[in-house]
Amino acid sequence: MTDARFIARVYAAADRHQSLVCVGLDPEPEKFPASLRNAPRAIFEFNRRIIDATADYACCFKPQFAHYAALSAEDQLLDTIRYIHEQHPGLPVILDSKRGDIGNTAEKYAQESFVRYGADAVTVNPYMGGDTVTPYLKWADRGVVILCRTSNPGARDFQDLQVDGKRLYRIVAERVAQAWNAGGNCLLVVGATYPQELAEIRAVVGDLPFLVPGIGAQGGDVEAAVKAGRTADGRGLLINSSRGILYASQGEDFAEAARAAALALRDQINRYR
Amino acid sequence: MTDARFIARVYAAADRHQSLVCVGLDPEPEKFPASLRNAPRAIFEFNRRIIDATADYACCFKPQFAHYAALSAEDQLLDTIRYIHEQHPGLPVILDSKRGDIGNTAEKYAQESFVRYGADAVTVNPYMGGDTVTPYLKWADRGVVILCRTSNPGARDFQDLQVDGKRLYRIVAERVAQAWNAGGNCLLVVGATYPQELAEIRAVVGDLPFLVPGIGAQGGDVEAAVKAGRTADGRGLLINSSRGILYASQGEDFAEAARAAALALRDQINRYR
Repeated sequence: MTDARFIARVYAAADRHQSLVCVGLDPEPEKFPASLRNAPRAIFEFNRRIIDATADYACCFKPQFAHYAALSAEDQLLDTIRYIHEQHPGLPVILDSKRGDIGNTAEKYAQESFVRYGADAVTVNPYMGGDTVTPYLKWADRGVVILCRTSNPGARDFQDLQVDGKRLYRIVAERVAQAWNAGGNCLLVVGATYPQELAEIRAVVGDLPFLVPGIGAQGGDVEAAVKAGRTADGRGLLINSSRGILYASQGEDFAEAARAAALALRDQINRYR
Repeated sequence: MTDARFIARVYAAADRHQSLVCVGLDPEPEKFPASLRNAPRAIFEFNRRIIDATADYACCFKPQFAHYAALSAEDQLLDTIRYIHEQHPGLPVILDSKRGDIGNTAEKYAQESFVRYGADAVTVNPYMGGDTVTPYLKWADRGVVILCRTSNPGARDFQDLQVDGKRLYRIVAERVAQAWNAGGNCLLVVGATYPQELAEIRAVVGDLPFLVPGIGAQGGDVEAAVKAGRTADGRGLLINSSRGILYASQGEDFAEAARAAALALRDQINRYR
């Protein structure tokens, strides 16, 4: 790792590839082409071809943990992360496992994320409070990506509740910006499906970077999200696409189709930043 | 599984063993006795001896996921859960992994928890809202244990925020009791370290059962917690102890010491319920 901070490594890749695209690696073998579906290590093989096809147009990769855990595929998750680091060393990896637990347990999760899997960053749920996030923050060269305003419909249930005239997600955002981000290693998850909230949060957290899910299958609009969430220098956003890239084709041309989808998303984002 | 609902199976064990003790299985090999520390499958061997030693005094077991994930020990987690089901079939297992993610991903986590590991219940983080919990609720014979007021110091950061005169944890509790628990398969995590909150939540959720962490190493008081959280029939609480039982002795007598610690906790709880 050449740059000391996670976000510096992501932005270096973003500048090099002129891209704010985060490629989500959510393998669903039933959507793989016939030649791969029942192959040994099908998940790793699928990921490897997606990674090689999209790396030129990405600033980072984000494997989603549940897709591996449900299939007892931890070894293929590990091999996927190793493959990215070895073959595409400038592209950081966010392990999307949304961890959240008390201090001594969070130490174990930090160990899992940063040592076992060697991820450059991990997603974390803030509900349990500051002492549950501290164990990750100690890793100065890794990123801690904290859920703030998520992209799903139920995000409204608790994240939108009003506390002294501010919504809960804004209180989380302020806490991260003012306290947890002292080491400059925090990011926030803010969904593309709520551009107004993206703009509101951007206004209170300065240049703090956002991981933005919700484009594509979840209905988020690229133009609205980029205009609402970008920083003054046209960065500040890692815009994730998983299904829209991975399954652009479910035929044998899936890798070429993924490459085209990543390029199209990159260019669409660049039109508005 | 003879009883249709998770909590019915737990209460059957609680009545049979006259115990509300949940034995937390948080293996830390550096605390194992010398004879086990470097043994092959040390985690499973340690767990097996703890399980056999404490089963008579327990109503359920709760393996904590991070302790296995940090050590690449998913196979030993699986074998531990299988061992409990085979050797102590009346004792349900709560997989403590605090999952929380959007709908299609939550389906994968439900698959992981209930199919891959065969757990009877799983812990879930509510921050992302209702649609992220629904995929677990569909499993009528499994338990969904939702974080409400956790036992750690940082629990105050967000869970205690006031929303229209009610604290956030109470809004979560009411949502679970009034909406998510329609199938009678929900529980709440309420920490023993906050007896006043235990009483407040008990007052608004009827007989909804609580999983209560925070006894022992975290400083929670048994008498205060039981008096504050019990239901009228002297149940309603699954009181977890992990470190206090597992590491009652770090010598070769660890299993006997664990049995004595579980018995002592059982009896201490029973004095106040």
